[in-house]
Amino acid sequence: MTETIQCPGFHAAGVAAGIKKDHQLDLGMIHIPRSASVAAVFTRNRVQAAPVVLSKSRLAKGQAKAVIVNSGNANCCTGSSGMSDAEAMAAAAGAALDIAASDVWVASTGVIGVPLPLEKIRQAVPEAVGRLRADGFGDFARAIMTTDRQPKLVRAVGEIDGQPFTLLAAAKGAGMIRPDMATMLCFICTDVQIPSDRLQNALAQSVDGSFNRISIDGDTSTNDMVLAMASGSSGARVETAGQAAVFQRALDSLCVDVARRLVQDGEGVTKMVTIRVRGATSDAAALQVAGTVAHSPLVKTAFFGEDANWGRIIAAAGRAGVPFDPDLVDLYFDDVRMVHRGQGCGAEAEDSATEVLRKPEFEVIVDLNGGQGRASMLTCDFSVEYVRINADYRS
Amino acid sequence: MTETIQCPGFHAAGVAAGIKKDHQLDLGMIHIPRSASVAAVFTRNRVQAAPVVLSKSRLAKGQAKAVIVNSGNANCCTGSSGMSDAEAMAAAAGAALDIAASDVWVASTGVIGVPLPLEKIRQAVPEAVGRLRADGFGDFARAIMTTDRQPKLVRAVGEIDGQPFTLLAAAKGAGMIRPDMATMLCFICTDVQIPSDRLQNALAQSVDGSFNRISIDGDTSTNDMVLAMASGSSGARVETAGQAAVFQRALDSLCVDVARRLVQDGEGVTKMVTIRVRGATSDAAALQVAGTVAHSPLVKTAFFGEDANWGRIIAAAGRAGVPFDPDLVDLYFDDVRMVHRGQGCGAEAEDSATEVLRKPEFEVIVDLNGGQGRASMLTCDFSVEYVRINADYRS
Repeated sequence: MTETIQCPGFHAAGVAAGIKKDHQLDLGMIHIPRSASVAAVFTRNRVQAAPVVLSKSRLAKGQAKAVIVNSGNANCCTGSSGMSDAEAMAAAAGAALDIAASDVWVASTGVIGVPLPLEKIRQAVPEAVGRLRADGFGDFARAIMTTDRQPKLVRAVGEIDGQPFTLLAAAKGAGMIRPDMATMLCFICTDVQIPSDRLQNALAQSVDGSFNRISIDGDTSTNDMVLAMASGSSGARVETAGQAAVFQRALDSLCVDVARRLVQDGEGVTKMVTIRVRGATSDAAALQVAGTVAHSPLVKTAFFGEDANWGRIIAAAGRAGVPFDPDLVDLYFDDVRMVHRGQGCGAEAEDSATEVLRKPEFEVIVDLNGGQGRASMLTCDFSVEYVRINADYRS
Repeated sequence: MTETIQCPGFHAAGVAAGIKKDHQLDLGMIHIPRSASVAAVFTRNRVQAAPVVLSKSRLAKGQAKAVIVNSGNANCCTGSSGMSDAEAMAAAAGAALDIAASDVWVASTGVIGVPLPLEKIRQAVPEAVGRLRADGFGDFARAIMTTDRQPKLVRAVGEIDGQPFTLLAAAKGAGMIRPDMATMLCFICTDVQIPSDRLQNALAQSVDGSFNRISIDGDTSTNDMVLAMASGSSGARVETAGQAAVFQRALDSLCVDVARRLVQDGEGVTKMVTIRVRGATSDAAALQVAGTVAHSPLVKTAFFGEDANWGRIIAAAGRAGVPFDPDLVDLYFDDVRMVHRGQGCGAEAEDSATEVLRKPEFEVIVDLNGGQGRASMLTCDFSVEYVRINADYRS
């Protein structure tokens, strides 16, 4: 299925370099023969992996001809050899593709603090180049996985002035996900023609409405990066405001789709929950409340237990640091009203709410009834399996 | 053992009112026949339970003659009947003790959003009064427990100008614990004579160095309260700065002792970990880093897995929002240096660190090597059992 997703102007591959165990795919490559304009959003973590630092330095040039990504090792906290290893990855890919190393973007994901097994990567680069093909994104998406259960490869299409265009995203990320950072690795390919500054604006807006609105465990990574590349192969051009709006809608929809899949495949996730806050004094205040509820371990364990424990949701809202009157709050699980004007609606509502919580996906609506501000966050439950996965990650 | 802890001037009791199942103790009472000067710190959660609101209104008067506390029900998000129920608890205790209701402090802890079973409490008040005795604090400490595995009853002593004095604390709190809020229920009794304003200053300082330096799950309750009461029964007086310093040391030590026990008995806790940050640009910056590491689910699950995954600690430090140079960071597990100048110290250090992590208690020292700021936080691991407890809490 996902194997057939392609985007004109892009070739991709995924191979097993031996960084991960059991011959799993762990080295991904994307090649854009005619080159692409690029935009990128990076983690805001103070500690940034060498490949992040290197790729950031590529941004000013605004173009890319290739991307090389390894999983199984973050190349972070690896000192000066970390940076020279990241540069060597770019150089190896550049040499094999006969392009300048400065046109190769680099990303890594995996364990922090272990030196990158550079030789394994170098030896696998020729095979990766040999396997590059238009329908290679399925392997690429597999090669960038860490604890992900499923590869994430999605597609969106649109039409600008009668000219169809394609968007493709390959992403990884199942833990350490939190808003306000780039949140994970995501490689977006499109065949529109768009200047890099316009692409950057569009990407920033889409990221804000998608990857910055999800929460799995509230942690953030040192390696996160969202890279968007536009090959121009379709003939669709993004120049006017109207064209930009069409492209933005498609990019937004792509990013929201990827974000949902990241949460759905989050470590140990059994429930997808949208926290929708309305009636706040401002959208920012609503987001603050939604985020605090979405991150709360007590709320998330209650979701796992299918327990309509709305008191924990109200308590989390109360510590979000924004003003509201607790005696005005209404709270719903989907369309079941559990709290009216700050008070529980009784046993019947609770029974209905418990039905809602049995579903794999539902909404919690918190209406503060104190203004027009609204925002939502997508979160998940906190399961026994999450703890098991993260207690055992390196063993 | 703990049964024999007493404090001159205070009587206490704990009885089973039938709020909790299986005839567990769930109603606690403290009586100070000669009255006490009081000080208190309350939760900063925007949503505050009725007993918190009521007790806050008592603070201006600066005295207490009795405290009534129930567990099994938080009397929070219970609307206008919540406040009248809290007042009725005070009135019932006041009537039975023949004192004004306004001299009775009220606290509740348990599930949010369920109406308080007031009649059960009313009916149990005479029995509680009948059981009041100097050595009743063991029962009292049991009566205020929720998911606590152990009652928390501790004692400290000191001497002011040759006059010995006693401090006693009875506390509960095993989840929803986070700094910068009063964090749980704690009732401190002392037999010194001290004006309430001086007691308030001393309490605020002790709370800041103890209950505000612990983290279990990063959530905060709607019901938290630390109440300090001074009976003056010992003859020791706190009037001069020198006398205040002696009292402060004893109160600090008492609060630190209670805080440690709260973490030790935290929900599902198998490890106690002190996060010590030094070399920050300021003490506040150090505390910010220590708190972010102490709250990180990824760090805490690694502790549970006895995994010396220092990369997660560095990643959490990096998102704390304070400036530091990752290439200068040193990191230790107890005295084992795992990271030197931002880089891992290799397999041998890792083996030694893994030994440290097998211990039930250890320290993580993060030296940012960028200044004189320092701070520490006491945290715990995040276990499979934590999730089980919180998924099942109400069932």
